[in-house]
Amino acid sequence: MPGFTKRLELATDAENDIVDMTEKVQQAVEESGLKSGIATVFVPGSTAAVTTMEYEPGLTKDFPAMLERVAPKSTAYEHQKAWHDDNGRSHVKASLVGPSLTVPFEDGRLVLGTWQQIVFVELDVRPRKREVVVQVLGEET
Amino acid sequence: MPGFTKRLELATDAENDIVDMTEKVQQAVEESGLKSGIATVFVPGSTAAVTTMEYEPGLTKDFPAMLERVAPKSTAYEHQKAWHDDNGRSHVKASLVGPSLTVPFEDGRLVLGTWQQIVFVELDVRPRKREVVVQVLGEET
Amino acid sequence: MPGFTKRLELATDAENDIVDMTEKVQQAVEESGLKSGIATVFVPGSTAAVTTMEYEPGLTKDFPAMLERVAPKSTAYEHQKAWHDDNGRSHVKASLVGPSLTVPFEDGRLVLGTWQQIVFVELDVRPRKREVVVQVLGEET
Repeated sequence: MPGFTKRLELATDAENDIVDMTEKVQQAVEESGLKSGIATVFVPGSTAAVTTMEYEPGLTKDFPAMLERVAPKSTAYEHQKAWHDDNGRSHVKASLVGPSLTVPFEDGRLVLGTWQQIVFVELDVRPRKREVVVQVLGEET
Repeated sequence: MPGFTKRLELATDAENDIVDMTEKVQQAVEESGLKSGIATVFVPGSTAAVTTMEYEPGLTKDFPAMLERVAPKSTAYEHQKAWHDDNGRSHVKASLVGPSLTVPFEDGRLVLGTWQQIVFVELDVRPRKREVVVQVLGEET
Repeated sequence: MPGFTKRLELATDAENDIVDMTEKVQQAVEESGLKSGIATVFVPGSTAAVTTMEYEPGLTKDFPAMLERVAPKSTAYEHQKAWHDDNGRSHVKASLVGPSLTVPFEDGRLVLGTWQQIVFVELDVRPRKREVVVQVLGEET
C-alpha cells in the first residue's frame, strides 16, 4: 500500500481569510493513483488551521466572528510580552481549531458531504504565503 | 497493508443529540481483519461533528452548553441572510469541533481510555438521518 | 507498508500543564524505520488533549486562559451532580480540543513548521500520570 505526498502553496490576503482547498486535495488523491484510503491535510505553522465548512460568503464571516468571541483582539496575551507581534490571538485560535484534518476517500473520491468543503483558515494578522501538506495513504485497488 | 471502509447509519432526534458510536467503530475494526493501525471516523456534512468524551448524562448536556456559549442561538449569523435555515450556529460549531477523528488500534482493539467513548454530535437544528464513514488502515499481523 | 506503535509516558504537575512531545514523536517515527507517512498522536482519556502550538511561556498561559473563557471554572456542570470530582470543565475542554492529531512525515522527519510543537494539554484538575499512543503508518522507501 503506497503513499503519496503533495505540498500545496497558497497566499492569503488578510487575517480570517478562508481558502477552499477541496479541489486541490481531490487532485492530490487522483495523482496518488490510490483508490481507497485517507488524505491527511496538515498546516505546518502555528497561526493557521484546517477544517471543513460549507464554503459560502456568510459562514466565512461567521466562523471568524465566533473565534473572535473565544479569543478577542482586545484581550491581553502573554505571548505579546515576549514577541510584540500582535498575534497572540492567532496562536490560540490555531491551536483550538487544529492543524490537521483526515478525510477518507473511496473509488478515488473524497467522501465529503455535498455542502462540505476542506478549508484553510488564515489566523495570522497579516497576509502570508502558506504551504499545506497533503499525505495520501491507501490501496491501489 | 490493506484498508477497509464502512459506512455507519444513525438517526438523531434533535439539536445537541450525542450518539455513542464506540461499539460500531470497534466492530468495523474487527470486520477489517486488521490487527494494528488507525481507524478514521469522518462525518460527511457541515452541521455535525465527531470527538470523544465520557458518555454520561451530565456531560452530554455540558458539552452542548459550552458550545452554546461559543456560538449562541441569539447571535446574528451572516449565513442566515442567504439561507434562512436558522442553523448558522450549527455550521460554526461543527467547523470548530471538527468532522474527523483518528483512533489507533492494537491487537484489534481501539486504544481508548476506560471512560472515553467515540461520539457523534448532532449540531443541526432538527432531527437528521446521518451517515458516518469509518476508514480502517493497518497491518494484518 | 508496515506500521509501528509506541506508547509514551508522561507526568503532569497540575491543571493546564502543557508538555512538549515533539522530540518523542519524532523518535517514534525514526524507530519505525519508515520514510514517509503519517504519525497519529492519541490521548486515551477524556480529560486531556493534543494539538500543536509554538511552545513558549506566553502561549502556554494564553491557551488555557482562552479555554477558561469557553468553559469557566465558575460555571455549574451537570457532570458534577453525578460524580462530584470537580472536573466538568476538564471534560468539555478535552472534547473541544480533541484527543487526536495526525502529522505527516517525509524523509523520516515530521513536516512541522519551525515554530510549531506537538503538545499534550493536561485539562484535569490534579497531577496525572498519562500515556499517549503514537501510531506510525507509511512506506519504507
